[in-house]
Amino acid sequence: MELLKQRILKDGKIKEGNILKVDSFLNHQMDIELMQEIGKEFRRLFPDKRINKILTIEASGIGIAAIAAQYFDKAKVVFAKKTQSKNLDGELYTAPVVSFTRGAHFDVQVSTKFLGKDDCVLVIDDFLARGQALKGLMKIVEQSGAELAGCGIVIEKGFQEGGKELRQAGVNLHSLAIIDSIENGEITFRTDD
Amino acid sequence: MELLKQRILKDGKIKEGNILKVDSFLNHQMDIELMQEIGKEFRRLFPDKRINKILTIEASGIGIAAIAAQYFDKAKVVFAKKTQSKNLDGELYTAPVVSFTRGAHFDVQVSTKFLGKDDCVLVIDDFLARGQALKGLMKIVEQSGAELAGCGIVIEKGFQEGGKELRQAGVNLHSLAIIDSIENGEITFRTDD
Repeated sequence: MELLKQRILKDGKIKEGNILKVDSFLNHQMDIELMQEIGKEFRRLFPDKRINKILTIEASGIGIAAIAAQYFDKAKVVFAKKTQSKNLDGELYTAPVVSFTRGAHFDVQVSTKFLGKDDCVLVIDDFLARGQALKGLMKIVEQSGAELAGCGIVIEKGFQEGGKELRQAGVNLHSLAIIDSIENGEITFRTDD
Repeated sequence: MELLKQRILKDGKIKEGNILKVDSFLNHQMDIELMQEIGKEFRRLFPDKRINKILTIEASGIGIAAIAAQYFDKAKVVFAKKTQSKNLDGELYTAPVVSFTRGAHFDVQVSTKFLGKDDCVLVIDDFLARGQALKGLMKIVEQSGAELAGCGIVIEKGFQEGGKELRQAGVNLHSLAIIDSIENGEITFRTDD
């Protein structure tokens, strides 16, 4: 997605250790006009009319999923929770996730009320690196008996193994920008997705 | 907001201890069409053309703020973070919050890059009870030197003191539904906001 790549080049910051920060438009401050274009692009990439649920994970996935859902007729957003919350009760789907960003293990949880065998689910998240969070969400879709229409990612770190593994496993995965390398402050995008 | 009150009556669940759960349409699963109507209502209640930032707090505020921002010309969403994240660096505005739901203290944090004296801020959140989170967000707006246009809340628990305190302090606060009591499974809304 050219608009997104240009925005990453313009406003992304490369921090020590070749870490890309996109907090000025994606995951701390959010540019809503860009989110709308991202939502339209997800719809183009996942045209399946049966998609009725968009599943994401708190926190920064929520805004992207909410805006994107507007382009999927009447799809509802369900966001998985990362911590045992007092607000979550009743039956839960649960999958364990290792977070390298947070340096911790946690469970992702979704109430069984909101996903079931009649649902067709698009999973959306902001970043894909090792794919831990995405695999957790996919496990939850599997537990629920829902159909997985695919996974839509805003930015994939193509130099980590998550995307490759998922594609090899046959997952219908689309990332709007795939970064193949960050070296000496220089970002190289993959050109063939 | 009549549509919201009707939805609370229809799909809200009263749990033991007279706790209202709205996780089927607001804070676990999100009904995006309802969110759009909520966003339009916030615009009607906060017509100030200078509003250029919508500040909220992770997690469930993010979807509401993202959808609402579409009705505020080019306003960006900034979401405060609740935990010390490795992704947050640089200068931060910080305010302490006591969470009764979580049974814990935490800090809310916003990067100083995304709020400053040239900004006019609408604060949005899903719930207002004791007002701890909202007061934390307002402290952050104050630290930043930005102007506070007001605070928009989806559901206020009018039987707790947060809303009353903030109105007495002169805050331009609007709640789309104010619940004055929940007794024996019966919800009573305030009729005069």
